[in-house]
Amino acid sequence: MGDAFVSELLGTAVLILLGAGVVATVVLPQSKGFNGGWLLINFGWGFAVFAGVYVAFKSGGHLNPAVTLGLLVAGIDFAKGVDPTVSNMLVYWAAQLLGAIVGAGLAFVAFKKHFDEDADPATKLGVFATGPAIRSYGWNMATELIGTFVLVLWVVVNGKTPSALGPLAVALIIVSIGASLGGPTGYAINPARDLGPRIAHFLLPIKGKGSSDWAYSWVPVVGPLVGGVLGGLLGAWYIA
Amino acid sequence: MGDAFVSELLGTAVLILLGAGVVATVVLPQSKGFNGGWLLINFGWGFAVFAGVYVAFKSGGHLNPAVTLGLLVAGIDFAKGVDPTVSNMLVYWAAQLLGAIVGAGLAFVAFKKHFDEDADPATKLGVFATGPAIRSYGWNMATELIGTFVLVLWVVVNGKTPSALGPLAVALIIVSIGASLGGPTGYAINPARDLGPRIAHFLLPIKGKGSSDWAYSWVPVVGPLVGGVLGGLLGAWYIA
Amino acid sequence: MGDAFVSELLGTAVLILLGAGVVATVVLPQSKGFNGGWLLINFGWGFAVFAGVYVAFKSGGHLNPAVTLGLLVAGIDFAKGVDPTVSNMLVYWAAQLLGAIVGAGLAFVAFKKHFDEDADPATKLGVFATGPAIRSYGWNMATELIGTFVLVLWVVVNGKTPSALGPLAVALIIVSIGASLGGPTGYAINPARDLGPRIAHFLLPIKGKGSSDWAYSWVPVVGPLVGGVLGGLLGAWYIA
Amino acid sequence: MGDAFVSELLGTAVLILLGAGVVATVVLPQSKGFNGGWLLINFGWGFAVFAGVYVAFKSGGHLNPAVTLGLLVAGIDFAKGVDPTVSNMLVYWAAQLLGAIVGAGLAFVAFKKHFDEDADPATKLGVFATGPAIRSYGWNMATELIGTFVLVLWVVVNGKTPSALGPLAVALIIVSIGASLGGPTGYAINPARDLGPRIAHFLLPIKGKGSSDWAYSWVPVVGPLVGGVLGGLLGAWYIA
Repeated sequence: MGDAFVSELLGTAVLILLGAGVVATVVLPQSKGFNGGWLLINFGWGFAVFAGVYVAFKSGGHLNPAVTLGLLVAGIDFAKGVDPTVSNMLVYWAAQLLGAIVGAGLAFVAFKKHFDEDADPATKLGVFATGPAIRSYGWNMATELIGTFVLVLWVVVNGKTPSALGPLAVALIIVSIGASLGGPTGYAINPARDLGPRIAHFLLPIKGKGSSDWAYSWVPVVGPLVGGVLGGLLGAWYIA
Repeated sequence: MGDAFVSELLGTAVLILLGAGVVATVVLPQSKGFNGGWLLINFGWGFAVFAGVYVAFKSGGHLNPAVTLGLLVAGIDFAKGVDPTVSNMLVYWAAQLLGAIVGAGLAFVAFKKHFDEDADPATKLGVFATGPAIRSYGWNMATELIGTFVLVLWVVVNGKTPSALGPLAVALIIVSIGASLGGPTGYAINPARDLGPRIAHFLLPIKGKGSSDWAYSWVPVVGPLVGGVLGGLLGAWYIA
Repeated sequence: MGDAFVSELLGTAVLILLGAGVVATVVLPQSKGFNGGWLLINFGWGFAVFAGVYVAFKSGGHLNPAVTLGLLVAGIDFAKGVDPTVSNMLVYWAAQLLGAIVGAGLAFVAFKKHFDEDADPATKLGVFATGPAIRSYGWNMATELIGTFVLVLWVVVNGKTPSALGPLAVALIIVSIGASLGGPTGYAINPARDLGPRIAHFLLPIKGKGSSDWAYSWVPVVGPLVGGVLGGLLGAWYIA
Repeated sequence: MGDAFVSELLGTAVLILLGAGVVATVVLPQSKGFNGGWLLINFGWGFAVFAGVYVAFKSGGHLNPAVTLGLLVAGIDFAKGVDPTVSNMLVYWAAQLLGAIVGAGLAFVAFKKHFDEDADPATKLGVFATGPAIRSYGWNMATELIGTFVLVLWVVVNGKTPSALGPLAVALIIVSIGASLGGPTGYAINPARDLGPRIAHFLLPIKGKGSSDWAYSWVPVVGPLVGGVLGGLLGAWYIA
């Protein structure tokens, strides 16, 4: 499992470096891509997954605890030679969370001078963690659940359709979920994607940073995990 | 046909969840993707088809009564082992319509707090059903007919060109038709895509909702069906 | 050659229907995609080529007299079983021009109510034919020449790189040339794409239409043909 | 090595023609794509790489001295039959730099009339060379280093993941890095991409041109080279 650990860590670090980066590009002052729009963010996150999945080739490129959990409940191997067990899942989860923290730190370095500019603390937090457009924990969780449900259902069933897109297929699914279901909560759809950078935000010496909004932090963890279980179960029943 | 029914239902539900979702993202108040632009809507619907076709792998991923009808008149199997007969078509149609209603309901849940905001009733209807930019039933029907004609012609002929894009190819055709022919009517080009969500709009407890505009509802049903027949006939003649 | 004629005609008709359509979507009053931006136009034309090449599977999907000429000078077969001869080229050219006129006519029908709205005659012409941002026939021709040179060079060399993208590859090259070299002249890079719709503009009963700007019409014919010859010659030398 | 020299030269010329072109399209006065946005620039550069890699099929399509250096330190062949040696690298570097100058010159011709318009000298320079949003050589170099590190790491590991995307895969990685990490410095991530066009800017008779900003010119050379070494080393260790 050492290989899988390094693989998920490196892949998730690349995912979050590029994912946090595209948000930074759009929201931080003086960025050349300032105000670049929602589609830029959607493609940015989608291609961040594209890059990360290539890097995590030794572990099946999950990069997402909800995907790992969904495969566990569906009884599908995590990668060639990696059984879907709880202990293997915990290794994946640890690597994903750690990789997300590392990736967020690299994004901070890449945009250091822009973080030094004056901006609303909520804007700076938004580079790291998601937040709801309209705060309502129950409905926010429903949105995260539905988005992750679609993702994991797709992950379970996609092998039935021949294609040669490789990691591009899942990348476009991420673009799709972001474009279509990201409006209300900013689409974490991945506990590590949200919690890891939130921890990084808490730890890093960001100029003029405010709260890390821990009150919301459980929503993009619980919603995606429940959605992943439901997507995994429906998918497993459907392809059986 | 039970498998095909479930497959078309699930696939169309995913299609409409993501398709209605991208419109909601762009038009509903407070959405993070508010005013995201036409290209965002085009890619959103295209990738919604991408996701839905993967899910509907047991039934050939039609997700559209006009495609099913076009294949019937062209004499092409609906899927491996599913003959193009009227009775099979009716099973597909029922699943597609039901799936569209389910998908629209899920989109409503995902955006519930945004539907609770004040907005023009026509805007809220626009998340579900299409409407003409300039109302003129004859010309609106012509636009829907032409768009669906291109889609079904492509579906019939595309097998002659080798590629390994899988569902991405039809997804990009949907992006294309939306980008190019969607301006006048919002491109239903699919009776289930319009009628199912319109029924959902009629049934759901949407705050401050107005009319479901039944007067227009036949246009995105009849136009696409006629276009599908013409596309199927021309395609069948051409590839013969 | 009857098959190739029908194939180029149908394929070019689909290309121009979708290509003129995306311009109409962006520039005509009341369109839902009004002001949708340059990238929308670029993807719209790229995916129009994508659709058209699939349709023209019997003739190699040239859809462009400059491509046909480029293959002739490079000595490359037009399609399986179609030798690169002048007489075959003339059949291709006739089909491409006729198809472009038909496609422009269909785009006019799809947007009829929007053409009936008041708009600058130059805007309405812009749906059909290209025009220079800064009129200067020599430099405009240079721009068209360079764009088509890149296209035909790519067409000649692309077979040396294995991929399974099918028609998507050339579609993305069109997106690229449009995004990068379209700013000065609107990138005809295809004599039929410009001349055919210009003829349609001249013939169709478009409300409030102005001049078809015949003074400029030779630029997007001559520039692309010269560029195609140069691209074909360089490519043939390079891959030899 | 003559073949490889011509191949890298031609491919890099196409890359820079299209890459400088998309910037010109977005920033030069009177361009039809004026103000087209960051995503247009990102796709423009990505598809410029797509086109260039096809053209440079004889040399492995590096088009970037940092990629060549990264492969050298990783001990990976430059192309079929081209060993990773310092002398071969110097041939690649020379071809890349020369090709970049040629490509920039062609972009100047394509946009000549737009360069003749009045515009801020920094805007005209921006078509050719990158510049920092917030000048700070150390942090600017860090940003360039991180972006190139991701690129070269991906180049080294991507062969482990089967796909049939061909040059599209690296093109989308370029889109990703641009969208996500381009905000602070305009993402050279390629010494030839920056230095070659800067030399062209210095040499060409551009109306109202200002300084070529040589003070900054070492940053997009040194940063990418260091990033390429680090990405090559990590990748080689990881795939070993």
